[in-house]
Amino acid sequence: MNPIFRDAIFADLPAIVALLAEDTLGEKREDAATPLDPGYEAAFAAIKSDPGQRLIVAEIDGRVIGTMQLSTIPGIAFKGAWRGQIEAVRIAQDLRGRGLGKLLIAYGVEQFRQGGCKFVQLTSHKSRTRAHRFYERLGWTRSHEGFKLALT
Amino acid sequence: MNPIFRDAIFADLPAIVALLAEDTLGEKREDAATPLDPGYEAAFAAIKSDPGQRLIVAEIDGRVIGTMQLSTIPGIAFKGAWRGQIEAVRIAQDLRGRGLGKLLIAYGVEQFRQGGCKFVQLTSHKSRTRAHRFYERLGWTRSHEGFKLALT
Repeated sequence: MNPIFRDAIFADLPAIVALLAEDTLGEKREDAATPLDPGYEAAFAAIKSDPGQRLIVAEIDGRVIGTMQLSTIPGIAFKGAWRGQIEAVRIAQDLRGRGLGKLLIAYGVEQFRQGGCKFVQLTSHKSRTRAHRFYERLGWTRSHEGFKLALT
Repeated sequence: MNPIFRDAIFADLPAIVALLAEDTLGEKREDAATPLDPGYEAAFAAIKSDPGQRLIVAEIDGRVIGTMQLSTIPGIAFKGAWRGQIEAVRIAQDLRGRGLGKLLIAYGVEQFRQGGCKFVQLTSHKSRTRAHRFYERLGWTRSHEGFKLALT
């Protein structure tokens, strides 16, 4: 199975939300019912209008089977290093364990390499222990603690 | 001591780089010698031209005593939640332990709240155990593992 990787179009949005919603953590906070919550459409438009953001899908035989978001962030540290950041990585549940996640991450890393980033970063919820082993096998270093603060 | 918080201007850049360079981790990777490495000036220009990025300084009596970068990132997850991200937080070594870091983070969080973000995130190197306690005292949740991959 060789997926195609490409930037998402608006018609992909229900499939992307469905991937987020079938996830253990995502099922509590997403709603894949159509018509979609207008928050999803507003976010899609914001991502598309922001040159620092790319929403990617992986497609096999016309089916969206994976997604991730790529953010390019300029920074002063490391003598002015651009950093790439990967968020919201998902592969369809019925297609896990076949190396598709590895291909997806490799595609994202290559995009950042071509974009001149000096490093790539991501965070993964502490409950996702399989994901942690996955990233370490791919050569990533688990060097940081990730903190979140909800705003009310 | 009541610092002023404001967006950095180009003339602040040597002081910002000096704050990054006096840090335990930063001293190995930054160079505060003037004229500054052109990488710093290019990064400053990139931050200023990107509406999703803000470089902040804290100033007391005309001296830049702290800095951080604020990134606003639209995303599909959480029904299309904007997230705020804080990077490269530094307070001058001779002024630590006086509550200035708390004021700096509070300013950043308030900017994101006013900008409509649903949550704020940051990562901190696993060696910075004092910083971890600091964020936890401020109510942040250490929920994620942070991974990095250097690009060569």
